[in-house]
Amino acid sequence: MNYNRYARVQTHKVSVVRVRSGQHVNMFALRLVTSATKFAKTLPSASCIKTIHTVNVLFKNKTDDLLSVDIRGESLQFPYVWLRENCQCEQCYHTSAKSRILDWNNFDLNVKPKNVSKDQNALQVTWNDGHASQYNLNWLKFRGFTTENQNKYTETIYKPKKITWNNEDFPKIFSKHDYNEILNSDEALYNWLYQLSVYGVALIQNTPDSETAIDAVVNKIGFTKRTHYGVKFVVRNVPNTSNVAYLSSNLQLHTDLPYYEYCPGVNLLHCLVQTASKGGENILSDCHYVAQYMKVHHPEQYKLLTDTEIEWRDVGVEDGNEFFKLHRDPVICLDRHGEVMRINFSIPQRGSQFPGPIDLVKPWYEAHANFLALNQKFGARFKTAAGDILCFNNIRLLHGRNAYEDSENNVRQLIGAYVDWDEIYSRLRCLKVKLKNEDGIC
Amino acid sequence: MNYNRYARVQTHKVSVVRVRSGQHVNMFALRLVTSATKFAKTLPSASCIKTIHTVNVLFKNKTDDLLSVDIRGESLQFPYVWLRENCQCEQCYHTSAKSRILDWNNFDLNVKPKNVSKDQNALQVTWNDGHASQYNLNWLKFRGFTTENQNKYTETIYKPKKITWNNEDFPKIFSKHDYNEILNSDEALYNWLYQLSVYGVALIQNTPDSETAIDAVVNKIGFTKRTHYGVKFVVRNVPNTSNVAYLSSNLQLHTDLPYYEYCPGVNLLHCLVQTASKGGENILSDCHYVAQYMKVHHPEQYKLLTDTEIEWRDVGVEDGNEFFKLHRDPVICLDRHGEVMRINFSIPQRGSQFPGPIDLVKPWYEAHANFLALNQKFGARFKTAAGDILCFNNIRLLHGRNAYEDSENNVRQLIGAYVDWDEIYSRLRCLKVKLKNEDGIC
Repeated sequence: MNYNRYARVQTHKVSVVRVRSGQHVNMFALRLVTSATKFAKTLPSASCIKTIHTVNVLFKNKTDDLLSVDIRGESLQFPYVWLRENCQCEQCYHTSAKSRILDWNNFDLNVKPKNVSKDQNALQVTWNDGHASQYNLNWLKFRGFTTENQNKYTETIYKPKKITWNNEDFPKIFSKHDYNEILNSDEALYNWLYQLSVYGVALIQNTPDSETAIDAVVNKIGFTKRTHYGVKFVVRNVPNTSNVAYLSSNLQLHTDLPYYEYCPGVNLLHCLVQTASKGGENILSDCHYVAQYMKVHHPEQYKLLTDTEIEWRDVGVEDGNEFFKLHRDPVICLDRHGEVMRINFSIPQRGSQFPGPIDLVKPWYEAHANFLALNQKFGARFKTAAGDILCFNNIRLLHGRNAYEDSENNVRQLIGAYVDWDEIYSRLRCLKVKLKNEDGIC
Repeated sequence: MNYNRYARVQTHKVSVVRVRSGQHVNMFALRLVTSATKFAKTLPSASCIKTIHTVNVLFKNKTDDLLSVDIRGESLQFPYVWLRENCQCEQCYHTSAKSRILDWNNFDLNVKPKNVSKDQNALQVTWNDGHASQYNLNWLKFRGFTTENQNKYTETIYKPKKITWNNEDFPKIFSKHDYNEILNSDEALYNWLYQLSVYGVALIQNTPDSETAIDAVVNKIGFTKRTHYGVKFVVRNVPNTSNVAYLSSNLQLHTDLPYYEYCPGVNLLHCLVQTASKGGENILSDCHYVAQYMKVHHPEQYKLLTDTEIEWRDVGVEDGNEFFKLHRDPVICLDRHGEVMRINFSIPQRGSQFPGPIDLVKPWYEAHANFLALNQKFGARFKTAAGDILCFNNIRLLHGRNAYEDSENNVRQLIGAYVDWDEIYSRLRCLKVKLKNEDGIC
């Protein structure tokens, strides 16, 4: 089996085109850049079976379409077309909508700079169409095209990097947050959401004993994700239920609502009443850890779980409204970079139709059994108390609950709400901008 | 460049293990099946640059893990493990939750049938663990593992097949539906949603002149998708806006909210007041058509638009709530089968940070310009009237609007709502089951 790997070779010819002298002016250079791309074919080792995403088209930059700018001692290159299109003046960029308003019907892809100058804080470019642009240097550097600058941007503002864990790590990574502090402090709110995004789990304590207490927490983020089970949901034993979560029996490890293409991102479970009986413990497992473990130790099963689409399914009636949800996705969904993007797992809500080839059925079941066993092995066990809101990433962790004895004097009741990652990352970024106050982000 | 293609060769040894005679009993056979897989390496033609998804693991079915069943003259095979896990009895399947409740901790992947029998409507299997299962034959056939049965299942109940169109086709495919009929007839509701899912566009007419009229239509599906712009939104000229759609100037072709990972699936735009001035026309373009066109005529640009992640972005304040949305995705997103899954396109809401290699910037801009030009070329132009609800697939079509003259006597006002495809496909399936009444679907 052959893979293509993408390698880039660049040579630079420096041509200083304009130098201004003055108190706040540094030297800068407009570089002529030639670049060539070549493909290196290599055979991966047997265990390396993940798909490597490649760009298969050979491009040569024209020799004159990049501007080199020295910013705080670093030489950075910016394509002309990118600079011109991202002009921040009021004609090109709408300040209150924070959006590009440049008319693409009159946009010249081959635009070139006529004059370039720089002072300590800004780069000024006059273009061959006569338009004048100015760029904040911190803003430019933050958008630099080097891998280092791009990685810094990603971790600073796109999404924090996830850290995986298993049952042994769990006591160290399981952070606890105070309900009132989250409502009253931006730092506490930021810290809670940051822990939740990095580890996929965080606990809120000291929540008032009220069915609406969870709303104030949700409002600090934005709003809930509504599903056919409602805007919020109550988890307690319901004999003639439309969902197995509403039974008191053992609730096997699962993700919620895998049959939603837009599967709820985060599950917030407010424990109002915890059963005094034995049982009712939570189990949580980080599937990013388990996926990595399988990739190393069971690569063929990992491949089956990442490649084989399964049909997730929920059919029923809730509050008089019928639903018939189907969604096809593997158990382990990878993104374009081969990183785990989403986990789907639910024995009750896996449909009976198998959309793949018959030959894969038995091996897939074996992989599925191993995935479940590993999640049980590496999962953490604990029991929430009344006043806790257990918050976890529903497209990363499996959660389950041991059976408990349900009686009139021994109930268990949770109020649940879902919030999507779109809203959580958005709130995290707003808080980061507010708390860290770094120049050049927006 | 090499591709792997997956080929399967099977040989069958038929062994009739049990034959019952009687009024409603047909012959059936338990087949011993051996299968081998082999990989054929072929070089694709130069224009074939799409990724071919392959299953890279070599599996051999055991010789005794498939059951052959003749159903209505067709010989179908079912893996034992699949049959046992999908037993429909009350111990294994919860009837009201319509969910599997079999305990996987005690599930034997190597389960085997001890006795098999069949009558005209059902297959009966007694397993080596003593458990007895019964399967409706229509239910089984609908879940058959042949490509033909799987395709039939997919089109019958998973999702209707999309049909692409361009500006010339538009008058033929642009279906019109009556507001009251949709509210009062399941057939009309089904027909509207079916057209919307196949063509990505459908018009509702004769809607009452009320800001809440759209709610009744949404309620027939389920509920709206809430975003940071609200549960519904009003589109009219707002001078100091947080979104360029609220301006009266030319609104370039775009998809709404590409910066949402969970991008709104369908856009419903109720035209309350249409401008009497020249301008304000809608433009709609089917990007599935344009993508296919680019794949054939501009394969390198197609590859750039499908492979290069772009950062979509919206930063602002709405109703006092700050938001900072970022989402990375190519313009043309493909699914695991190489089919277009989602389109992202918005010049104002494309962020300034480019997450890819600098060499791709200029070629990507050229591909982007061509994509826009082709959508303008193949897009359909028309003007909605007061009382229309324009409904379109927001992750498939681009939409835009010509500039109009906004004055006190010449306004234009729309009420908009988003609904996700999860809810639309769900409603379509419920209606299909109700209207077509086919046995074996659930």
